[in-house]
Amino acid sequence: MPRRSFSRRLLAGGAAAAALGPVALASPATAAKGPPGRAEGEGEVRHLKLYAEKLPNGQMGYGAQKGKASIPGPLIELTEGDTLHIEFENTMDVAASLHVHGVDYDIASDGTKLNGSTVEPGGKRTYTWRTHAPGRRTDGTWRPGSAGYWHYHDHVVGTEHGTGGIRNGLYGPVVVRRKGDILPDKQFTIVFNDMTINNRTAGHTPDFTATVGDRVEIIMITHGEYYHTFHVHGHRWADNRTGLLQGPDDPSRVIDTKITGPADSFGFQVIAGENVGAGAWMYHCHVQSHSDMGMAGLFLVAKADGTIPGHDPHHPPGHEHP
Amino acid sequence: MPRRSFSRRLLAGGAAAAALGPVALASPATAAKGPPGRAEGEGEVRHLKLYAEKLPNGQMGYGAQKGKASIPGPLIELTEGDTLHIEFENTMDVAASLHVHGVDYDIASDGTKLNGSTVEPGGKRTYTWRTHAPGRRTDGTWRPGSAGYWHYHDHVVGTEHGTGGIRNGLYGPVVVRRKGDILPDKQFTIVFNDMTINNRTAGHTPDFTATVGDRVEIIMITHGEYYHTFHVHGHRWADNRTGLLQGPDDPSRVIDTKITGPADSFGFQVIAGENVGAGAWMYHCHVQSHSDMGMAGLFLVAKADGTIPGHDPHHPPGHEHP
Amino acid sequence: MPRRSFSRRLLAGGAAAAALGPVALASPATAAKGPPGRAEGEGEVRHLKLYAEKLPNGQMGYGAQKGKASIPGPLIELTEGDTLHIEFENTMDVAASLHVHGVDYDIASDGTKLNGSTVEPGGKRTYTWRTHAPGRRTDGTWRPGSAGYWHYHDHVVGTEHGTGGIRNGLYGPVVVRRKGDILPDKQFTIVFNDMTINNRTAGHTPDFTATVGDRVEIIMITHGEYYHTFHVHGHRWADNRTGLLQGPDDPSRVIDTKITGPADSFGFQVIAGENVGAGAWMYHCHVQSHSDMGMAGLFLVAKADGTIPGHDPHHPPGHEHP
Repeated sequence: MPRRSFSRRLLAGGAAAAALGPVALASPATAAKGPPGRAEGEGEVRHLKLYAEKLPNGQMGYGAQKGKASIPGPLIELTEGDTLHIEFENTMDVAASLHVHGVDYDIASDGTKLNGSTVEPGGKRTYTWRTHAPGRRTDGTWRPGSAGYWHYHDHVVGTEHGTGGIRNGLYGPVVVRRKGDILPDKQFTIVFNDMTINNRTAGHTPDFTATVGDRVEIIMITHGEYYHTFHVHGHRWADNRTGLLQGPDDPSRVIDTKITGPADSFGFQVIAGENVGAGAWMYHCHVQSHSDMGMAGLFLVAKADGTIPGHDPHHPPGHEHP
Repeated sequence: MPRRSFSRRLLAGGAAAAALGPVALASPATAAKGPPGRAEGEGEVRHLKLYAEKLPNGQMGYGAQKGKASIPGPLIELTEGDTLHIEFENTMDVAASLHVHGVDYDIASDGTKLNGSTVEPGGKRTYTWRTHAPGRRTDGTWRPGSAGYWHYHDHVVGTEHGTGGIRNGLYGPVVVRRKGDILPDKQFTIVFNDMTINNRTAGHTPDFTATVGDRVEIIMITHGEYYHTFHVHGHRWADNRTGLLQGPDDPSRVIDTKITGPADSFGFQVIAGENVGAGAWMYHCHVQSHSDMGMAGLFLVAKADGTIPGHDPHHPPGHEHP
Repeated sequence: MPRRSFSRRLLAGGAAAAALGPVALASPATAAKGPPGRAEGEGEVRHLKLYAEKLPNGQMGYGAQKGKASIPGPLIELTEGDTLHIEFENTMDVAASLHVHGVDYDIASDGTKLNGSTVEPGGKRTYTWRTHAPGRRTDGTWRPGSAGYWHYHDHVVGTEHGTGGIRNGLYGPVVVRRKGDILPDKQFTIVFNDMTINNRTAGHTPDFTATVGDRVEIIMITHGEYYHTFHVHGHRWADNRTGLLQGPDDPSRVIDTKITGPADSFGFQVIAGENVGAGAWMYHCHVQSHSDMGMAGLFLVAKADGTIPGHDPHHPPGHEHP
């Protein structure tokens, strides 16, 4: 099971772990044609090292290895029931922290100055995140599980709400799966952070590549000051927990545009090019001035032979990223 | 079946087709009392002509007949399984295009400069939209259908994202129904485009009329720069695919106010005056400065005798549109 | 059943009714451990007095007793089927009104100048709100019930949309329950009104207290000009009608952050400290400049012995409210 071994490799923080950009998973391109993989979980206790580091040009990032910080930080994947101990080290010259959305943690892992859980320059702190499966409470009501598309970020750099840390890049994605959830072939994290995408400005925004038929997971997070509307050309998803309809009776709206604001997060899976084929499909913020200022990138879906109709990667006509 | 014949008339683009404003359907006022009509579909292949035209005062519009452009453009209704070939003609002196949300199309119908699918002044291009019913994929997962409240717009006038075209009025509604979906008696399209409603400014915003008991469908689209909150007095809907609860177990929130941003679209049906009776019911953006600046109109629900309690159409007291 | 007697006390408007702040209910702290209470309803006809009053510093409030106005105004709770007659008295020197979201009312209870349903200084007017259970229409379709987290506000002070009244504090929460809905132990109303919380500015925002295990209901309303993202540390809810998952098949997203705009309202219940324990849990707008400017407060969850780990109420370290 390469999927689990991937997770274990990251979560062990071993020397073999590669720096993790937004594209984290290698996978068989044929996965969408056969039965997809499913999340498994045994309530494991895992360990991860995470470093807050300075990057060039005043940027900051989280990394699973020293000197390997990235923006966004590493994708952290858990299955409901897992516990994760993160040994966090702040290599920067200002206090930093780790605050997470969606999962369970004691107040000592809040990552806020309010609760005394930030980390001074050169310091370390272990943050513990727990997750749980859904189930019935003793009072008969239903307790939701931890599964979801979540995220972590700094909560102290610049202001007590981490405004400077977030602006500079101290954020990353968290996916918590339910046992049985469908696993993707490829994963991309897209963060609308003020007017940037993953802290990359107009002309340098990330493109994402897949082959027709790949099961692609998008993890979409917003940060900063502005509201945005996230849109992908030619692909749609369900506005529910997984982004996938459960079946014919799921009443959720199917959408291709979603309004988001700071700290919102959601995710979904699409089959690349399903019903529409290969192509250079734009994704962008649909607030007109935002897209005009360059909040746009490409979801490049290639045919099995690697070509993309109408798209010359060396001379993309009309590409807004010269 | 007058409903299908309506659609056929529009989609054939024949000489008998009237210019289509936001109120598109004539219907029996009693339809809400008996069993409502249901969408039918056989996977038809349809043809439509669509013109991008200059309108007075720098406005632009789409029209199904030459010289008959309107803002919003014609309502295009499909049933899942239908294919629509649109012979698009640009009668303007700048390049224009047709980009659609929600439905299936090859990259050649993307309507973007990036993909070489815009139309020069005086030129023509056929855009093909396909739709599909939901169903189970070969990998066992559920594929959503195309049904939804969608929209089309220009993607090239002014900027490569069509900011000028959208601002000037190049947009319109698309409804894709699932076989068996309930058909309305009346339909209204409301587009919050910057600070206008359907490009009409304060004092000139559209009012919509119905009789108590009519099944009224609202298609709500947002465009431009701003976020809005769409509100209707005295009427509510479900925040799901159809705006109608499927039944007692549908967990969707029932709302009368919804936050929206550019390129968002949703729709719903209400029974005019249900539980509240006839009246001049306001609809408006609930962002206070937006309503104060005139982003408001009336949903005029008359009694069977045509009167509206408390409302004198010639001297509407306190009406914000003098 | 103390719950019903509370409601009756408020809704009778009797002399015994206390001024109602956002914390309205006394309740057994153990309720979350045994079967929770359930809403009952017999389609009662109720009566309430409501006063619009001037408060110090130019603020305005609604109150159930003369001289007892508060911001937000009294929490009004109904069960589907109830009818509420509100004898409204305007003790201020400007016209005021009562406009409600979510429930049923004739146009004469619209609370707008348009419909001649505002109240001059010193005047009175009875507004009637009705509610209804869900059920099947005679045409076979499903009619949604009135249950929801709603709100009321002025619609005439300052502008014809009540912008001045809302800004000054003329708003309050409404909860309509379905028979069988789960009753909370404690209730808090949080209104993001421009850059205030419940019209309290930075440094004076409300904190809310509970004991681990309390079933706490949050009623969240937005007003004014801005969009916000509402976030609570350590607690999550379902993005559906009740904020509670119906069971394992409910596809609703579980969230801890939600984008909202003016006149949006939603509500949910959490078990205080569930899976996370006691602590000083922040709630705040997650738009970074908004939180930095003080749109934040505390959800103080105490252990059974009344202590809150790491929190000294007299010297809250790093508390943004000095």
